[in-house]
Amino acid sequence: MKESAMSPTGDDIPFQKAEYDRRIATVKREMQRREIDTLLISEPSNICYLTGYEASSFYVFQVLVVHRDLEFPVYAGRFMDAVSVRRMTHLPPDAIRAYTDDYVQSTERDPVDFLVAQLREVCPTLESVGVETGAYYYSARTHMKLIKSLPDTRFVDAELMVNWIRIRKSPQEIEVMREAGAISDAMIRDAVDAASPKMRECDLAAVVYNRMIAGTSELGGVYASSPPYILTGSRTGEPHAPWTDRVIGTGTPINVETSACRRRYHAPISRTIFLGSPPDSYIRLADAVVEGIEAALELIRPGVTCAEVERVWRGMIARHGLHKESRLGYSIGIGFPPSWGERTASIRSSDQTVLEEGMAFHMMPGLWLGDVGVTITQSFVVTESGREDLTKYPRHLVIKP
Amino acid sequence: MKESAMSPTGDDIPFQKAEYDRRIATVKREMQRREIDTLLISEPSNICYLTGYEASSFYVFQVLVVHRDLEFPVYAGRFMDAVSVRRMTHLPPDAIRAYTDDYVQSTERDPVDFLVAQLREVCPTLESVGVETGAYYYSARTHMKLIKSLPDTRFVDAELMVNWIRIRKSPQEIEVMREAGAISDAMIRDAVDAASPKMRECDLAAVVYNRMIAGTSELGGVYASSPPYILTGSRTGEPHAPWTDRVIGTGTPINVETSACRRRYHAPISRTIFLGSPPDSYIRLADAVVEGIEAALELIRPGVTCAEVERVWRGMIARHGLHKESRLGYSIGIGFPPSWGERTASIRSSDQTVLEEGMAFHMMPGLWLGDVGVTITQSFVVTESGREDLTKYPRHLVIKP
Repeated sequence: MKESAMSPTGDDIPFQKAEYDRRIATVKREMQRREIDTLLISEPSNICYLTGYEASSFYVFQVLVVHRDLEFPVYAGRFMDAVSVRRMTHLPPDAIRAYTDDYVQSTERDPVDFLVAQLREVCPTLESVGVETGAYYYSARTHMKLIKSLPDTRFVDAELMVNWIRIRKSPQEIEVMREAGAISDAMIRDAVDAASPKMRECDLAAVVYNRMIAGTSELGGVYASSPPYILTGSRTGEPHAPWTDRVIGTGTPINVETSACRRRYHAPISRTIFLGSPPDSYIRLADAVVEGIEAALELIRPGVTCAEVERVWRGMIARHGLHKESRLGYSIGIGFPPSWGERTASIRSSDQTVLEEGMAFHMMPGLWLGDVGVTITQSFVVTESGREDLTKYPRHLVIKP
Repeated sequence: MKESAMSPTGDDIPFQKAEYDRRIATVKREMQRREIDTLLISEPSNICYLTGYEASSFYVFQVLVVHRDLEFPVYAGRFMDAVSVRRMTHLPPDAIRAYTDDYVQSTERDPVDFLVAQLREVCPTLESVGVETGAYYYSARTHMKLIKSLPDTRFVDAELMVNWIRIRKSPQEIEVMREAGAISDAMIRDAVDAASPKMRECDLAAVVYNRMIAGTSELGGVYASSPPYILTGSRTGEPHAPWTDRVIGTGTPINVETSACRRRYHAPISRTIFLGSPPDSYIRLADAVVEGIEAALELIRPGVTCAEVERVWRGMIARHGLHKESRLGYSIGIGFPPSWGERTASIRSSDQTVLEEGMAFHMMPGLWLGDVGVTITQSFVVTESGREDLTKYPRHLVIKP
């Protein structure tokens, strides 16, 4: 932690005020460009990006208000969480507005009414309000009610607006992602050490979780936005099913897809561990994946497009008669449940996003072929002239005879 | 697992087809009452309730369609998850409709278009379509697009409709909640055994996670819908902040709020562990909470209202000069991130829900007083004549000198 803009590890607010001021200024410039005077942010990752707030209160109504003419954003949320907002952000007390508990999951009171009252009180104008129409925690009901409550306001769809600003990470953010990457590596090392045929799947998952949360002796972890995916046998053909109580058995691949998390920043990693002696066909499958990912990673540098990266991968695995229907990767950074992806750029043939320094991706060449699968992946940041890998675990099929 | 309607532990589908048929029939009766011919279910807990599907695919677009005149519900989701739906549900192949990956987080294709095409193909009528306008995974954008795409359809707000049906659990469901409760008890026992002044908060969190996932030797666990909340010192006054890398220290309360999870069913529990010798004022605070919860639990039986239960609690703690602003509890059962609450009945003064056999609650008398807090809670099911506790850990402040 050499960066002066970074608070010491374990502090309540991850970054110094200047870092948040810079982010807010960028958002305000984009608001001006889109002629939005008031931005209502519902996505927890975006709230965290602009304030540092990372408590798990997003299951109830909360909004961060950014107004063109106000120095500070204003947080509106549940009273019992206001104390965490005070501790975990640089917001002044007056910028934290709390509703009482009888607004929570109630048929009598609606927190949207509370929000509207706050907006009328603190916002100098409400001419054009930007809302995140695709955010997980901005409901259809909230949107309809807001439109009704502010009849003279023009609503602008600001879906993913802050997410696209988040895509370029600052040096401070990259440092935290490196920390997450170090724990992710340890999670895979622990899984490889522990995996054995007589173990239940849930016990292997517990090993992975233990490291995710305990972290290392220097760096503790928090829960990732998504559970680890741990699938064995024929179920390696499925990406998102839960582990079970079953004993793993021998002669089987185990897909482990997971991520550590520091201050809500992620650095995901997947490896396949084969218990026993893999058939030649399976080794060839894994080799093809490794050949493909190595070629695609070679290409990473500013100026290249996501589509170009995917094309290289596609060409390499086609030589082996393979085809991957799903995207090859996605942008990563801050994440809250249900996902650690930023929902912006994807590494796929239709995505013309040009790579820039500071962008971070999880290159995810998982092949899930219905009855078998393999996943060997790499998280990285685009640097001035190439890339920096966020995890260091070697990219190959791990065979445990 | 004596119930004949329950599949053996670890099986791919938690319950037999008859159990799902019964649930679907109940939903269809309610649809008829509300004059809904087609119900679009977005809430993962409701999808799981009606099919058994529990993979973590809800971060992308998925909908379960229940039509008045169709025998089976129809799942519409991402192609890579269709294989899990086939394995984890009784749905026939034709009732599983999968969109290709270029619909995922794309600016070119919208999965709502895919859904509408499926609806036109499979639904005999689309006169009145029910949607869950407050569900976490039904976005404002989806709602607006659906309305535009189906101009001749009447939209009905079916928010929480299935949730209110879920509130009464079957004997099979209660059995799974007992299993979750057994693991929840073990989580608290482990936390009490492990907690020590020289430990980092994250290491205590890892102990709790390890048991959540490993479960017991008979029953494995899966990840709960919400992370454990583990707060120490002055931060016991906050309910939802993350644990940190800090060493716990001595002379401090530790609030542990958590839940185990089996087949997505939860049985939450909270206890406060005090390291060292608590001041008399703190012991009095904990005693008041215990007195209050015991009195409120005494009252639980069919016919009593949530408001009446809360009134007893309120009266008891008022004797000690205490007041709890937040609700005393909430309905529990199936949960997916971000919450294990069902979002229906709350134990609070304004909730006139009448308790019925099979309803399950987490009575949550947490006091978060800004700079200090205590939580000693109880999950229970309402029985024919009283209640059954889902966790057995004694209800008192745990002092570890």
